[in-house]
Amino acid sequence: MDFRISKRYFFNALSIVGRAVSANSPLPALSGIKIDVLTDQILLTASDSLVSIQKILKTHENDFVLEINEPGSIVLEAKYILEIVRKIDSDEIHIEVIDGTLTKISGYNAEFNINGQKSVDFPLIDFNKPSNQFTLAASQLLKIINQTSFAASDKETRPVLTGVNFKKESGKLECVATDSYRLAKKVIELREGDNFNITIPTKALSEISKSIEKETDILVCISDKKIQFWVDNVVIQSRLIDGQYPETSRLIPQIFEHTLIIDSRDLLNAIDRASFIKSEGISIIKLSASDTEIMISSRSQEVGYSKEKIVPIEYTGRPFEISFSGKYVFDAIRALSGAIVKIEFSGDMKPFVLKTNEDDSVLQLVLPVRTYN
Amino acid sequence: MDFRISKRYFFNALSIVGRAVSANSPLPALSGIKIDVLTDQILLTASDSLVSIQKILKTHENDFVLEINEPGSIVLEAKYILEIVRKIDSDEIHIEVIDGTLTKISGYNAEFNINGQKSVDFPLIDFNKPSNQFTLAASQLLKIINQTSFAASDKETRPVLTGVNFKKESGKLECVATDSYRLAKKVIELREGDNFNITIPTKALSEISKSIEKETDILVCISDKKIQFWVDNVVIQSRLIDGQYPETSRLIPQIFEHTLIIDSRDLLNAIDRASFIKSEGISIIKLSASDTEIMISSRSQEVGYSKEKIVPIEYTGRPFEISFSGKYVFDAIRALSGAIVKIEFSGDMKPFVLKTNEDDSVLQLVLPVRTYN
Repeated sequence: MDFRISKRYFFNALSIVGRAVSANSPLPALSGIKIDVLTDQILLTASDSLVSIQKILKTHENDFVLEINEPGSIVLEAKYILEIVRKIDSDEIHIEVIDGTLTKISGYNAEFNINGQKSVDFPLIDFNKPSNQFTLAASQLLKIINQTSFAASDKETRPVLTGVNFKKESGKLECVATDSYRLAKKVIELREGDNFNITIPTKALSEISKSIEKETDILVCISDKKIQFWVDNVVIQSRLIDGQYPETSRLIPQIFEHTLIIDSRDLLNAIDRASFIKSEGISIIKLSASDTEIMISSRSQEVGYSKEKIVPIEYTGRPFEISFSGKYVFDAIRALSGAIVKIEFSGDMKPFVLKTNEDDSVLQLVLPVRTYN
Repeated sequence: MDFRISKRYFFNALSIVGRAVSANSPLPALSGIKIDVLTDQILLTASDSLVSIQKILKTHENDFVLEINEPGSIVLEAKYILEIVRKIDSDEIHIEVIDGTLTKISGYNAEFNINGQKSVDFPLIDFNKPSNQFTLAASQLLKIINQTSFAASDKETRPVLTGVNFKKESGKLECVATDSYRLAKKVIELREGDNFNITIPTKALSEISKSIEKETDILVCISDKKIQFWVDNVVIQSRLIDGQYPETSRLIPQIFEHTLIIDSRDLLNAIDRASFIKSEGISIIKLSASDTEIMISSRSQEVGYSKEKIVPIEYTGRPFEISFSGKYVFDAIRALSGAIVKIEFSGDMKPFVLKTNEDDSVLQLVLPVRTYN
């Protein structure tokens, strides 16, 4: 194995792939990046066994230097190769396997010889494209991820809730995440491809959102077992989460007794200010509503209490009080990303729904909290 | 206690004083900031019992609002008062003790009521000025701190080595820090004040360096037990470290066999690049010197090895090899902050001295490391 490559080009590629590296894998090879040098291209691959990323570097593809002298393959410890390539003081880098797995990385007056691992020790990952395919604009995919994935569970007790459910039927793609105390739902039109009902790990969605750098089309390929996102010459592939995703549509109330329309920024700031008062690590916020004013308050025996008035844009319904997790409502309003939020309540112990006038494709739902003061 | 104050003015003052707050003190009051409201000024005080900071806010001193309605005193939890004042959406803040220790902080439509602590529970700290006084330019004090304190020990086994020794005699101030593997020494002229020999905790020096915002004169007041730094209306006071500081002048070799003059940036970068190779968490760097080239290399059984050539500006002496902690030499060269570094060696197992041509007030010394490969 022997090739020369532009430092910047190589470093960027290693950084993208390196995000999939798992520092603490039981499989030693997974702490490395696999470099497969073919006659006319190089494949960089990393995986944490759930999410895998592969980047293809092609000769003659762009302005960067990539000169392949001898094909071959090696796995190099991600933290070392990244640090060496980042710090090397040379526009071009020469990489060759010189003895078994000992790999020389050289540029200008410096050379680094690091012990690699044999590429046969790296798990075989199948990057073949499944046949169920559709295309999403990068901005659309990013919006789906940002508006839903925060609401997924971070607890492994019900694994299926740690992902975002993507369900396609009747020309629509419905994306739902819930940790059973809150729920986020985004629906977009999607005609292309066959119907499916899959649950994608949030880690995979987080990787894809970090990899989207510009407005482009993203090819999504889906099978029963895996999903692939193709962005330029990068593929991010993830295993899917097994198990039936719960039916969530019946959780969303349809009849409301109180409706509050309020400036998003005002409410976000008031919740943020009140949230320093925590009970057992959680900020419980009370919202008291009447025609003329909204009161946001919080209280803890130990710390003290806060209260803040906001003038609503509109409130319809009887005077009413409800308590909720400050963080959950804060996250929900931020994910809606509209200037004005509409909150619909069915009762002080029923889930309430947050929407924005500007975008009816997204809905947030939060369960209230019972309080005794 | 009742006063109104500009949010920005108050927040800045709280931030300065808040740096002394100790989150994990056994004394609960020390997690707070003491607010003493007198008839014409407010004193803000915080302490971790080693370092104490006090800021004086005066009425009619500047453009900011400070209106005292009723004197009094309270201790407020630092993290709460800082967060409230930072987030409050109002140019002016009104603070009053309303019931016992319950303190109301209000601005615009929001009010926060937090439980304080009685100021008698805050330890009494004597901020009287000792009589031995001198003045340093802020830039000069900052340079002393930056060029010495990193070399102090971070281990409590010999407490006196965790500080920087300041010794004044014969019209000179000599500042020395050592962890017994390296030593940093800075000497400046100082005629003002009486002689002294004290050891200042590095934490106090770190606080004072963070408090220096502009070129100003700093009044330093010293007794046997404490040191004070006065910057504008802020005093940073520290207890001194007990115990005799070791005599270090005999450790510094006077006769050298090899002298290397080299570009600082070249050597720093080469050490930085080689430092990813660590053995038991430490990067040991080997420097091999001859008339025509300097070789920087590192090696570990597990990771691999690196080597890099640098053309020196000048090397005098026989060809020679020495090994050292990459971090120690890196720190030393960076602290010298000159474009060119002169390194003088007395032998491969003797301490070596690093200086810069541009500034003979500062000297760095590093002990080599014995290696077996």
